[in-house]
Amino acid sequence: MNVCLVGAGLQGRRRAGALSHFADDRLVVVADINLTAAQEIAAQFGCPATERWEKAIDNPDVEAVLVCTPPHLHADIADAAVERGRHVLCEKPLTHNLEAGRNLLAAAREVGVTVKCGFNYRHHPGIRRAHQWVEEGQIGELMHVRCRHGIGGRPGYEKEWRAQPEISSGGQLMDQGLHVLDLLRWFLGDFDSASGVVSTSFWPIDPLEDNVFALLQSTKGQVGSFHASWTQWKNLFSFEIFGRDGYIIVEGLGGRYGTERAILGKRAFLEPFREEIIEFLGEDSSWVDEWQEFVSAISAGREPLGSGDDGLEAQRLAEAIYESARTGTVVRMAEIVATDSAV
Amino acid sequence: MNVCLVGAGLQGRRRAGALSHFADDRLVVVADINLTAAQEIAAQFGCPATERWEKAIDNPDVEAVLVCTPPHLHADIADAAVERGRHVLCEKPLTHNLEAGRNLLAAAREVGVTVKCGFNYRHHPGIRRAHQWVEEGQIGELMHVRCRHGIGGRPGYEKEWRAQPEISSGGQLMDQGLHVLDLLRWFLGDFDSASGVVSTSFWPIDPLEDNVFALLQSTKGQVGSFHASWTQWKNLFSFEIFGRDGYIIVEGLGGRYGTERAILGKRAFLEPFREEIIEFLGEDSSWVDEWQEFVSAISAGREPLGSGDDGLEAQRLAEAIYESARTGTVVRMAEIVATDSAV
Amino acid sequence: MNVCLVGAGLQGRRRAGALSHFADDRLVVVADINLTAAQEIAAQFGCPATERWEKAIDNPDVEAVLVCTPPHLHADIADAAVERGRHVLCEKPLTHNLEAGRNLLAAAREVGVTVKCGFNYRHHPGIRRAHQWVEEGQIGELMHVRCRHGIGGRPGYEKEWRAQPEISSGGQLMDQGLHVLDLLRWFLGDFDSASGVVSTSFWPIDPLEDNVFALLQSTKGQVGSFHASWTQWKNLFSFEIFGRDGYIIVEGLGGRYGTERAILGKRAFLEPFREEIIEFLGEDSSWVDEWQEFVSAISAGREPLGSGDDGLEAQRLAEAIYESARTGTVVRMAEIVATDSAV
Amino acid sequence: MNVCLVGAGLQGRRRAGALSHFADDRLVVVADINLTAAQEIAAQFGCPATERWEKAIDNPDVEAVLVCTPPHLHADIADAAVERGRHVLCEKPLTHNLEAGRNLLAAAREVGVTVKCGFNYRHHPGIRRAHQWVEEGQIGELMHVRCRHGIGGRPGYEKEWRAQPEISSGGQLMDQGLHVLDLLRWFLGDFDSASGVVSTSFWPIDPLEDNVFALLQSTKGQVGSFHASWTQWKNLFSFEIFGRDGYIIVEGLGGRYGTERAILGKRAFLEPFREEIIEFLGEDSSWVDEWQEFVSAISAGREPLGSGDDGLEAQRLAEAIYESARTGTVVRMAEIVATDSAV
Repeated sequence: MNVCLVGAGLQGRRRAGALSHFADDRLVVVADINLTAAQEIAAQFGCPATERWEKAIDNPDVEAVLVCTPPHLHADIADAAVERGRHVLCEKPLTHNLEAGRNLLAAAREVGVTVKCGFNYRHHPGIRRAHQWVEEGQIGELMHVRCRHGIGGRPGYEKEWRAQPEISSGGQLMDQGLHVLDLLRWFLGDFDSASGVVSTSFWPIDPLEDNVFALLQSTKGQVGSFHASWTQWKNLFSFEIFGRDGYIIVEGLGGRYGTERAILGKRAFLEPFREEIIEFLGEDSSWVDEWQEFVSAISAGREPLGSGDDGLEAQRLAEAIYESARTGTVVRMAEIVATDSAV
Repeated sequence: MNVCLVGAGLQGRRRAGALSHFADDRLVVVADINLTAAQEIAAQFGCPATERWEKAIDNPDVEAVLVCTPPHLHADIADAAVERGRHVLCEKPLTHNLEAGRNLLAAAREVGVTVKCGFNYRHHPGIRRAHQWVEEGQIGELMHVRCRHGIGGRPGYEKEWRAQPEISSGGQLMDQGLHVLDLLRWFLGDFDSASGVVSTSFWPIDPLEDNVFALLQSTKGQVGSFHASWTQWKNLFSFEIFGRDGYIIVEGLGGRYGTERAILGKRAFLEPFREEIIEFLGEDSSWVDEWQEFVSAISAGREPLGSGDDGLEAQRLAEAIYESARTGTVVRMAEIVATDSAV
Repeated sequence: MNVCLVGAGLQGRRRAGALSHFADDRLVVVADINLTAAQEIAAQFGCPATERWEKAIDNPDVEAVLVCTPPHLHADIADAAVERGRHVLCEKPLTHNLEAGRNLLAAAREVGVTVKCGFNYRHHPGIRRAHQWVEEGQIGELMHVRCRHGIGGRPGYEKEWRAQPEISSGGQLMDQGLHVLDLLRWFLGDFDSASGVVSTSFWPIDPLEDNVFALLQSTKGQVGSFHASWTQWKNLFSFEIFGRDGYIIVEGLGGRYGTERAILGKRAFLEPFREEIIEFLGEDSSWVDEWQEFVSAISAGREPLGSGDDGLEAQRLAEAIYESARTGTVVRMAEIVATDSAV
Repeated sequence: MNVCLVGAGLQGRRRAGALSHFADDRLVVVADINLTAAQEIAAQFGCPATERWEKAIDNPDVEAVLVCTPPHLHADIADAAVERGRHVLCEKPLTHNLEAGRNLLAAAREVGVTVKCGFNYRHHPGIRRAHQWVEEGQIGELMHVRCRHGIGGRPGYEKEWRAQPEISSGGQLMDQGLHVLDLLRWFLGDFDSASGVVSTSFWPIDPLEDNVFALLQSTKGQVGSFHASWTQWKNLFSFEIFGRDGYIIVEGLGGRYGTERAILGKRAFLEPFREEIIEFLGEDSSWVDEWQEFVSAISAGREPLGSGDDGLEAQRLAEAIYESARTGTVVRMAEIVATDSAV
């Protein structure tokens, strides 16, 4: 597949690097308003670079577009790509608001192209193993999931694009929180209600939040619970899944999050505690796996894991949590749909 | 001090054992409807045993009463003890409902005796160290606290007294959850609002819950967040305190909860992660320390750590969480006061 | 079985406590030169106490003798017990030197009583599980074992009986080192040669050692390697067994050694590292299990696990390591036999 | 500095990558008998490639030579480089035998160029921190060091160059063992005697060993103890340093060795165990730091950390251990010198 990359920052480099593992896929053009950044990636792949993304996606060779810009530009670029019949893999959040997301997905369905949301956490080997264990019935019917996720931070974080509301479209809830919401949906399915609290506890980034605590409840009474934080001081990822017959813990994401592990424990009242632990060391393979999933889904004519719809639904949950935090109420997910339809 | 023990189960044995560390304190009578159990403890301490608690607290030598029965009897016994001018150390929950608690504390104030609620977690060395670190300003102004606590369970748990609503006055929220609520108050002070979800996910104990997830918010916007579970499958205690300058983690409670540790980490963006870890190995010292606190407070004429008021306040938070779970709303703590005053 | 306990210190209390789990076994007399200590244990079991061990083992009801004194008295007491036809469970080291041990075992064979050496480590649940895994072939043919064991120490350690050469008959090699040697033999069988280094690095206890490092080699070329230390500063037990198909790690012994765990990993070159971990929390069950083994072996007329011969062989290995350290040579185990026969 | 790289395998790529962090240093030529491998690196740095190392080091621009070939070629290349007045950074082992090493270092002294041995472990941040703590006196006078190091292995390991005696000049003792020996010397200074056992337990690589256990003793009676293994099944690095006042543990090396940590504990008999833990996450910085040390030493006219002499001394210890294993004796280090001088 011939690929256009829009956005030559850290994410762009990661996605481009993932591409290079596949003989059948190649970058054919790179766009970034920072032309030097675009040229650096382009040079490695022997393709042209441009400052103008419109020009890049117009390139007639392009079959798919990787959207790796900050969130405020996702909709414009993805819309234009879809209009030209390109498949799209767009970083999360899919778009800056729900309406734009619905429009994008409607257009894609009409044109017949695939839109995938960048949810690489689903492709982390610990998460994949956890999902496989759940599907095998290792821990029985699921009861609830508990997640803690956060970063240690760095000086000047409040000046990065993530801290600019007009660009980021949200704080930590839209940042790492959105990955958590997508994972909760992947394991527990859809939710009925949401409540949450957001706070701006440390970073001078009001009205954006640096912390979010939330409780989600499914129609079956399953609970999804999480805290996502930009003030964790030491990077943390912990995702705990409880079933009637046991539990699964995924911790670490490699790199500064520490060793990635998947842990399986069975309920066994009369025996000593026993766990099986798998450690995933070395390189982060999630970007390569996610690209492969995108290509396979297109080729098979099926929805990819972490589809555009998944992107929209995760965002709908985020909206519900924001509304709960604003109003001090528990928010029914049905209301979020209603409100949206009204737009 | 001459002490009457009412309730000769596991807790009674623990409290009696703690007493034996103090030369100036002694059991003078033990009461339990199971006379054999009462006699066993009494034999070790060379004092009489009885089946009738009324008779035991009437004993004119008695200066203080240890109430270690199931919750439904706390109020009757403690009321009678206070009426006779005895100090009271009563297991949590202080009483089976808020009204009984308020009445007990009002009577104690009138008579001039001390009522302490059994909150031994405050006396675990890891928690004490954490509180000391906070008071020293090691992690600056507190932002939020996150707690996960649960038990692995055992066969027949649904038949124990904890699972009988008329005896226990609540499920896991009133069990380990109440300890967590007391700790949250100790670290963060009073709360403005509470929301929560309870579920009966595994044990056939409806209407009691085996799991509770809750979010509490203080007037200063600090968040207390916890999950308490009777379906944790592997015993867990994790209490994480985040301040603007660092974090503290207390994990383990010894025994089947694993090694008790207090961990201190400072925010330090440009350096590698660094933590100080203290391990508390060996015997659980919390029961001895709590007894000492009770005696010291009486002697000094001051409120003990984990006072009767603390017991009542923790219970008020539990009530708010139950109401939130019932109504699907965020509950203002002021409403809980109002409702109660109306009784 | 009617049991006489000689030695009412920490070990005596542990062994007596273990006895109380068995309906068919009871203490009938306790002896200690510290009569008060003997009386305390005797009172709990409702039996007489005496200052004179000779008198105690003369008691015609006695069927078995628990020897829990310091090492220098083991031989005298055990010899006298055997002479009177009592079975003997004697703390390690079996006797203060090899000759005394050989004489004791020869006498016991003649009289037809059982002599067992107190090697409770074999009965720790983590070690038992490890041995079971090895016997099941989980890690294939064994290649080598690596052990690190040590204590944190306490003020005045140099004044305890362990630090008195005339009483202890050796330093850390005869203390925790002897347990390690017994375990190495249990897993790897007999050894061909030994080399080692001892040092008196911290405690003023010369000529006793506070540290010993040793390498043992079996006829099959398997290696047993260990370091035992009185200057570990933080209690440690780690026992690592390597087979051609995997490895087993036992770590912790509970209490101040931290959680006891048995870990099983299989060689699997192309997969991520995977381990099965069992945690043994709560009370130390080794004393009860070891007593049961002693009684079962007597009843079945078989050698117990951790027999008198095992005690002697472990001591022969210790002697070889001492000689290696003295002479700066690698010592053949055959020489130790020869030297001994000459005595 | 203008640098010639000889050897374009994994090590060559690492060393070249480290170079690219320094504005004043650059590759000017790359040599490898595998021309394609040489060209790949050369392309990234915009310099020529050649199959012939002789030609590469003849290049008049070359000021320093990086020797990253297998061991059997080290001496020839390094000798030629020194002869032409180039500084040399040569992977360990410095040369294939002691005589060649002595000749190389003598020649370098004569010519006045710097020879450094590639001992990047000294530059791992955990090891550096440990050395700094020791120099600050955090753990007092050193008593002994204990090291366990090994790899999990991979299919076909026995066919790699490391398993070819004529190329590798030794098994695991010359591989990871040599790094350990260098670290032991860095912390404990020179040794008096050595004993050890080698085995070929799993891999069909006789006469090379896949495991080595060794004990080294310094004139001060300090002990260096280690086990290095090609049959560890799960990658391990653990380096434990004990002083009279505390201990330091370095564990992990990042990547498949898990998180790199430096741990400091102080002797404190009457308090709970307390440790300070620093985690070094993210990229392995040792290659960059080692290059900087090489350049700084040349510029300052001083011996680098991990000098040619250090390389030779580590190899002398390895020889002593091999001899101990062959002869079943404890070997005096003085004998190794004598034997060598005789050559």
